[in-house]
Amino acid sequence: MSEAVRSPRERYRRQVREEIKTLAWEQVATTGASALSLNAIAKRMGMSGPALYRYFGSRDELITELVLDAYRDLSGTCRTAADGPTAPEARLSAVATALRTWALDAPHRYLLIFGTPVPGYAGPPEATEIAAELMSVLLNAFAGEESAGEAGAKASAEKNAKAPPEAPPETGAETDAETGAETGAKAEAKAGAQIGAASDGGSGWDAARALESHLAGHRTWVPDSGASEAALRRALTFWTRLHGVISLEVAGHFTGMGFDPALLYAAETEAAVHPAQATRDT
Amino acid sequence: MSEAVRSPRERYRRQVREEIKTLAWEQVATTGASALSLNAIAKRMGMSGPALYRYFGSRDELITELVLDAYRDLSGTCRTAADGPTAPEARLSAVATALRTWALDAPHRYLLIFGTPVPGYAGPPEATEIAAELMSVLLNAFAGEESAGEAGAKASAEKNAKAPPEAPPETGAETDAETGAETGAKAEAKAGAQIGAASDGGSGWDAARALESHLAGHRTWVPDSGASEAALRRALTFWTRLHGVISLEVAGHFTGMGFDPALLYAAETEAAVHPAQATRDT
Repeated sequence: MSEAVRSPRERYRRQVREEIKTLAWEQVATTGASALSLNAIAKRMGMSGPALYRYFGSRDELITELVLDAYRDLSGTCRTAADGPTAPEARLSAVATALRTWALDAPHRYLLIFGTPVPGYAGPPEATEIAAELMSVLLNAFAGEESAGEAGAKASAEKNAKAPPEAPPETGAETDAETGAETGAKAEAKAGAQIGAASDGGSGWDAARALESHLAGHRTWVPDSGASEAALRRALTFWTRLHGVISLEVAGHFTGMGFDPALLYAAETEAAVHPAQATRDT
Repeated sequence: MSEAVRSPRERYRRQVREEIKTLAWEQVATTGASALSLNAIAKRMGMSGPALYRYFGSRDELITELVLDAYRDLSGTCRTAADGPTAPEARLSAVATALRTWALDAPHRYLLIFGTPVPGYAGPPEATEIAAELMSVLLNAFAGEESAGEAGAKASAEKNAKAPPEAPPETGAETDAETGAETGAKAEAKAGAQIGAASDGGSGWDAARALESHLAGHRTWVPDSGASEAALRRALTFWTRLHGVISLEVAGHFTGMGFDPALLYAAETEAAVHPAQATRDT
């Protein structure tokens, strides 16, 4: 229903609900969600408790509104960030930056959805859907990065194939050095690719590989995605690593440690976005 | 003061305080720390509110006791885990396992110290000291891993130096293949070392390098440590990554996603403990 066709009564109702939510956010910030009191909000608004309950039937209903508002806002923020750049890596970096900015902007909002659960309160199913949408933003970007990586590898292979054949060895030492340099470069590229694969869950990373195999068969969190095993692991890891830094930062754990969390966040973003950076650099 | 020399009155006081704390932990789990009520505890113990305040002067004093008990228990658990194995990597893995077990054993205890801060409550300075001790367990292990890595690299270099010189090429194709394989292996090792360095903050990882430089000059969180820049970054990252997984797990965010968080945790432990795994495997 658009704003225009709403009755004055309906508009007034929405307005009061918004006012209640604003005061509820204040309470979440100052006393915590678990101490949220509808009666206290009613008092501040000059209403009776029962009158307020006509707008929100229970504490849990009010918390659900706050949680969904927060999730929708976060989802919108991340989508907008991802829609800007076209390169997958730039999109992931933009999402990472937007995520931290969003969290620092209102720590209590970040912590309401990702912090200590409110005892006795069960989150709404809609939150799971919005979280899945957010995850699909990450999965699409990682899938895009993989395609770009494959295209790059293919182009590189074609370039190698077009390279002039090596001259047959004529003088011992000189040729040795040349051949060594040439095959060395190829082997280095191969090693880089292997290590790139390793840091993406290939050989040498048993637990990463085990996780990818497991995720391949447990995709309920991304129902309609054809994302690769590696993309699933990387999207999940992107989330947990960035959350690890953000949640400790907004909870004040870095305060007094004397370093700048922005640099830690940048390093973790880099590691999450460019796990095979070294491959491209060699 | 040892248990033996305590007066009956003092023993009784301790006993009551322990009973209050047990009930307080129950409240933290069921209603949340921010809704902690000393009067509710007094009622359950059959005491008057004012009588209970003779044991804990305020809600904050009680929370501080819980926070410090939790930190001390976590610190003891991690130290015990680290004291077992002698190899640095095994020590780090043991600490990681102990950390998750400790968190899953009592999620509300983990979340009291690492979750949403209790509004209006400022953590005690002693917690910072205990956190610094915990960090030193990690730093020592990472420093040990570096020493082992250097010793390994030295041994490897000596082995290479002792390897017989390559035979001069005789027949074109065959020799080419052989030389290629030999120098390829060396180049691969070199590439591996470079990538190992890169994942430890060397070239190719600008943000990681920037973080390490920054941490080198911002060590107030580890006052008396001669830890390398890389060890500082890795210890910090070990903490934030594992916290990222644990905190989302204990807050129930993986519930309904359908995968086993233990595998995700194992993969993140592996990545935090063996960032240069691929180097050693090549």
